Amino acid sequence: MRILKITLQYDGTDYVGWQRQANGVSIQALLEDALEPIERSPVVVHGAGRTDAGVHALAQVATATLSAAIEPATLARALNAVLPPSVRVLTVQEAEPPFHARFSAAGKVYEYRIVNEPIVSPFLHRYAWHVPTPLDVEAMRKASRLLKGTHDFAAFQGSGSAVASTSRTIRAIDWVDGGGAVPLVMRIEADGFLRHMVRTIVGTLVEVGMGRWPSSQVTRILESGERREAGRTAPAQGLFLARVIY
Amino acid sequence: MRILKITLQYDGTDYVGWQRQANGVSIQALLEDALEPIERSPVVVHGAGRTDAGVHALAQVATATLSAAIEPATLARALNAVLPPSVRVLTVQEAEPPFHARFSAAGKVYEYRIVNEPIVSPFLHRYAWHVPTPLDVEAMRKASRLLKGTHDFAAFQGSGSAVASTSRTIRAIDWVDGGGAVPLVMRIEADGFLRHMVRTIVGTLVEVGMGRWPSSQVTRILESGERREAGRTAPAQGLFLARVIY
Repeated sequence: MRILKITLQYDGTDYVGWQRQANGVSIQALLEDALEPIERSPVVVHGAGRTDAGVHALAQVATATLSAAIEPATLARALNAVLPPSVRVLTVQEAEPPFHARFSAAGKVYEYRIVNEPIVSPFLHRYAWHVPTPLDVEAMRKASRLLKGTHDFAAFQGSGSAVASTSRTIRAIDWVDGGGAVPLVMRIEADGFLRHMVRTIVGTLVEVGMGRWPSSQVTRILESGERREAGRTAPAQGLFLARVIY
Repeated sequence: MRILKITLQYDGTDYVGWQRQANGVSIQALLEDALEPIERSPVVVHGAGRTDAGVHALAQVATATLSAAIEPATLARALNAVLPPSVRVLTVQEAEPPFHARFSAAGKVYEYRIVNEPIVSPFLHRYAWHVPTPLDVEAMRKASRLLKGTHDFAAFQGSGSAVASTSRTIRAIDWVDGGGAVPLVMRIEADGFLRHMVRTIVGTLVEVGMGRWPSSQVTRILESGERREAGRTAPAQGLFLARVIY
C-alpha cells in the first residue's frame, strides 16, 4: 500500500467543513468519493486540520492509503476532473510510512482576513470578516505579541472540546495591513491549535482594536483560563488554513 | 427632481446581467426595487453599460431621478442595507441636468482576467477565464496594438446587434501579467463598445497567444468585417466593467 500526500485548496463557503458529517457536504467526503472509483474500494482520507464549516484552505494536507498503481500527477488530474471548482488538488506526492497528514504535522499556519472599511467588496464578502469600525492595528499588534510563546490557551478554546492539554506554542503572530483595498490579514503559526482558537484570538484582538479593551487584557484572559473572558468567535468566512508544516 | 449618480460594484455570477429581464434577477431590478420605497413611487435607473449575464462591475454608474429629499450618503447606506452583499453601492453623488449615466459617458474601461495556469484557484474560478494552455503574452500584446485606434469593429460584434455605426476608438489596450498567482489582465479603454466586443477581442487574442494565428491576423479580421473570422466569445465570468469616463 502507498501513502499519498494530497495538498488541497478550497472555498469552504458551501461546505459543512473538512470532516464528513450527516448534515451536508464535507471536503473529506468529496475527496473520498472521488478516490473510491480510482481505488475500486472505499478510501478513508485524513486531513491535517479539521477546518470548520465555512472555513477556507489555501493548502490543506490529506493522506490517503491506496493500492491503485496511478502516477501522482495523473491522480491529481483525475481528482480535479471530478471535484467541483470550489475544491482543487494542488499536488499529489508519494510519502514514506509512517507519514500521516495530522499526526506528522509539526505546526500549522492560519490566516484571518478582515475588511476594515465601511463597505465590503462583493468579491471579498465570502472571504473576510467585515468590521466597519476603524481598528487600531498597532494596539492589536501589541496585544498579539502577548500571546506569542507557550501558554495555556483554555480561554481561547471553543466549548465542547475534550483535549488532553490546552497548552500550545504560538511561534509567530503578525498583522499585515494592506491599507484599505486589500484586507487586513492576521498570520499565525503554532505547533497546534485548539478548537476555534484562531477565531477566538481574532475576536479578542478586534475588541482591543476597537478600543474596548487595553492590549494588556489578553494576558488577563490567558491567565483566567475562562472562555467567557475572551472576545466573540470571529466568523468562519475570514479564516484560511494557509500551510501545514512537516 | 434631482439626478443622482450611483456608482456600484457587483459580482455578476448569479444575475442575468445589468438589464431588467423576465427570466431572472438583474442588477437594474435590484436597484430599482431598492429605490422604490425611498421614493414612494416606481423609479427607473439607467446604467452606463449593459453588462451581460455573469459579467462583473468594479464601478458601474447608474443615474436615477428622484424627488425624495434624502442625503446622498444616507441613500448609499439605505441601499446597501437592502441590497444583497453581491451588489454594493460605492458612492451616491448629486449630478446636474442633463447628466445621464449612459449618454454622458465619454468612454469606458473594461478588464478581462485570465488564469493561465494548469489549475485555477477556487477563489478565482468565478472571476476569470481558465486557459490552461501556456499563452504567448508578447504575441497577444503585439496583436493588441493592431487594434488600437479608430476601426470598424463589425467583426468583433456579437450577433443580433443593431447599432447605427460599428466604428469605435480603442484608446488603450494593455496586458498586465501578474505572473501566475495573480491572473493575466487585459485592460481596454474605448469611447464605446459593441455588444460582446471585449469578449470577442479576448477570444481572438487568446488564439494568437496559443500560436494558432499570427499577431497580424487581427488586422485581417478587422478588415473582413465578419464575426465568423474572429475568435470565440470569451466567457462572461472573466469580464469586469472597471470604470466609466465622463
